[in-house]
Amino acid sequence: MTIFSSIHKPTLLLDENKARKNLALLNEKILLQGKQFRPHFKTHQSAEIGEWFREIGITKITVSSIEMAIYFADHGWDDIFIAFPVNILQIEEIIELSKRIHLSLLFEDISTVSFIDKHIFCQISGWIKIDTGANRCGLRSDQFEIIAELAHELEKSKNISLKGLITHAGHSYRFKTAEEICLVYDQSVETLLGIQDQLNQLGYSNIEISVGDTPSSRLVKDFRNVDELRPGNFLFYDVQQYQAGVCQLEEIAVTVVCPVVAVHPEQNEVVIYGGAIHLSKDSHAWGDIQNAYGLVSLPAQNDWGWDDKKIVGYLRSLSQEHGVVVMPDGVPDEIKPGSLVCVYPAHSCLTVQSMGKYTNLDGETIHTLLA
Amino acid sequence: MTIFSSIHKPTLLLDENKARKNLALLNEKILLQGKQFRPHFKTHQSAEIGEWFREIGITKITVSSIEMAIYFADHGWDDIFIAFPVNILQIEEIIELSKRIHLSLLFEDISTVSFIDKHIFCQISGWIKIDTGANRCGLRSDQFEIIAELAHELEKSKNISLKGLITHAGHSYRFKTAEEICLVYDQSVETLLGIQDQLNQLGYSNIEISVGDTPSSRLVKDFRNVDELRPGNFLFYDVQQYQAGVCQLEEIAVTVVCPVVAVHPEQNEVVIYGGAIHLSKDSHAWGDIQNAYGLVSLPAQNDWGWDDKKIVGYLRSLSQEHGVVVMPDGVPDEIKPGSLVCVYPAHSCLTVQSMGKYTNLDGETIHTLLA
Repeated sequence: MTIFSSIHKPTLLLDENKARKNLALLNEKILLQGKQFRPHFKTHQSAEIGEWFREIGITKITVSSIEMAIYFADHGWDDIFIAFPVNILQIEEIIELSKRIHLSLLFEDISTVSFIDKHIFCQISGWIKIDTGANRCGLRSDQFEIIAELAHELEKSKNISLKGLITHAGHSYRFKTAEEICLVYDQSVETLLGIQDQLNQLGYSNIEISVGDTPSSRLVKDFRNVDELRPGNFLFYDVQQYQAGVCQLEEIAVTVVCPVVAVHPEQNEVVIYGGAIHLSKDSHAWGDIQNAYGLVSLPAQNDWGWDDKKIVGYLRSLSQEHGVVVMPDGVPDEIKPGSLVCVYPAHSCLTVQSMGKYTNLDGETIHTLLA
Repeated sequence: MTIFSSIHKPTLLLDENKARKNLALLNEKILLQGKQFRPHFKTHQSAEIGEWFREIGITKITVSSIEMAIYFADHGWDDIFIAFPVNILQIEEIIELSKRIHLSLLFEDISTVSFIDKHIFCQISGWIKIDTGANRCGLRSDQFEIIAELAHELEKSKNISLKGLITHAGHSYRFKTAEEICLVYDQSVETLLGIQDQLNQLGYSNIEISVGDTPSSRLVKDFRNVDELRPGNFLFYDVQQYQAGVCQLEEIAVTVVCPVVAVHPEQNEVVIYGGAIHLSKDSHAWGDIQNAYGLVSLPAQNDWGWDDKKIVGYLRSLSQEHGVVVMPDGVPDEIKPGSLVCVYPAHSCLTVQSMGKYTNLDGETIHTLLA
C-alpha cells in the first residue's frame, strides 16, 4: 500500500519534507545575510502550511489579495503586506484589517494614498512600488518626480508611514541562466539604491528596500543592501523554475497525480484525467516544444524520489478536463486505463489555486482558503 | 445606481437574457432539423442555469466528469452522458450513478468495457469514441478493426447497450472561417457515417451518431444524418468564438468586471485586479497579437449593450491576480484607480470554472457546483 493506492481522481500531492527543506534552505540563506524574510503566502494559501513558517521563527508575511490577508489574519498572522496595488473599492475590508493587524500596503498613485489616509484611523505602513523592468506595476526610475511626490504624500499623511521601496523583478522569470537572473537582480537593486539615494537627498532617511522573486532569491549569492525578501514559489518550485535552472527536479514538492483514461501506444501518447481546471493553462518550454503543460513521471516509492532520468513524457495539450501526454520513448507496457501518472506542474502557484487543497504523503488533506 | 456600483472585486457578470437567447436560437435550429439536443453542462456547471434548459423542454444533458454527473443528478437530471473516457478508478461513483439515472458512458478501450460491465448491475448506454481529427481521444477510422472489437464487446456485455458513435470535432476551434468550420463538420460526419456503414454491414444496426462542438453547431446549415448534438459553449460564447466568426461580440453573455488598480497613461496601459485565477490563462489572437487574454470595454448601461466599436483594449498579460490592459488609443481620462472595466473572457468555460459563481444583472448570485 502506497499513497497512490488511495487516489482515484486528480489529486495534488504534497511532499512535506521537500517543502520544509526548501523553506529551511532559503530561510537560512536570508538570515545569514541579516535580511528580513517576509515570504509570499500566495503560493500555498494554507494556514496549516503557514505553521511550518511560524515554527522556524517567521512572523511577517506577504499576500496578494485582501481575502488572503483576512484569512491569514484569522489564523494569527499580525504583520501582513498586501503586495498588490491598493484596490480602493475594498476600503471597508482595508479599514477592518488596519484595526486588527499591522498592515503594509503598496502605492503608486497619489490619489490612492490620500483616499486611504482619509478613511483609515489606525497606523499602517506605505511602500512605493517601483518597476525595475518587469513592466507590470509601479513607477520607473525615470519618473522620479512622481516618486518624490508620492513620498511627500505618504510623509504628510496622518495614518500611513512611508516605509520604503518595493519591487518584484518578475522579469527574472523570463531568463534561463543563473548569470542572467543574477544580472536582473543586480540591475534591479541598483535602480532601487539609486532612488533610495535620491530620496535620501530630499530628506527621506530610513527608506527600506523590499525585493522578492524566487529565481533571484535562490541564485543570487549576495543580496546586497536590501532589507527584505518576499519570494513565495521557492516552497514548492515547479517546471518553470526547473527549466530556468533555479531548482533541481527532485526539489519540486508538489505533483498532480492523474488517472490514465486512454492509451494510444501507436502515437506514443496517453490521455489523462487532468486538464486546465487542475493544472491551469500555464506552460513551460521543453526541448523544441514551446508550450508544454507539465512533465510526467510514474509513481514509484511513497516518497517520490525520482529525478530527471525518470521523466517519461510531457503534456502537449490541456482541455478543460483532459490532458494529452506525449511519451517520446513509447508508452510503457504497464500503463493502462486506470494507471496513475504524476504531473510536475508548469507553475505551482496556479496549480494550487486550481486544485484548492493538498493531500500529503500520509493521505491527509491540507486545506487552503479556497477549499 | 447600476449593477456596477455594487462591484468591488473581480465579478463574473451574467446577462441572463443574452444566454437565454443564445440557448433558444440553437435549440430551435436543432429541433427544426429533427435532431436530439443534449447540451454540455460543463460550460455553466449550474443547477439554476440548468433550469433554463428544462423550461424549454430539454431532458438529456452532457457533462465531463463524474462529479458534475452527481451534482446534476442531485438536481433532478436523470439522463446524463459523461462525455469523457471512463475513469475506472471511480467505479464506486459509476455504480451509484447507474442505479439513480440513465447513464451514458464513452469507451475506446475493450478492457474498460469488460471492467465496467462486470461491476455495474443496472443497464447503461455505451458509446464508441471516434477521433475525427481533434487528435485527443478516441479511435480513428483506420482502426476499424478495434472499433469492431469494441462494438462486439459492448454488444455481448450484460449491462451496457451499444448505442452509437460519438465524436468531438474539437479541431473546429482551430479554424477561423465559416467555410473551414463547416468543412471540418462535413469531414467529421463523413467519417462517422462511413464507420456506421461498416458496422451496419457487420450486423450492428441502429448505431446512432452524436456530435458536438459550438462552432459547427452554430455555423453548419444542414446537420445531415446525425442523431444528437452536444455543444456547450454556445450558451455564453467568448472571444475565441468571436474571433472564429462563430458569434457576435454582443452575444457574449458573460464578462468579468474588474477594478482598475493602476493607470499608466504614458504606456497606454492600466493594471487591473483580475488575473489568471479569475480569467484562466487561456488566450485568443487579437490583430497582430498572438496571445491576448480577453477584450476590454467600459461599463455602460446596466444591460451591457456594447458592440465591437466599444472595445477599448485587450489584456496583454496575466499574473496570478494582476492583468495588464493595453489601450492602443490611449487611456480614457475617466479611468482612475477604482474605476471598473469589463473583460470579455478568452474562453468562458474556463473563466466560469475559475470564478465559481455568477452575479446576474439584478445583483443576485447564481451558484455552480464549485461555489
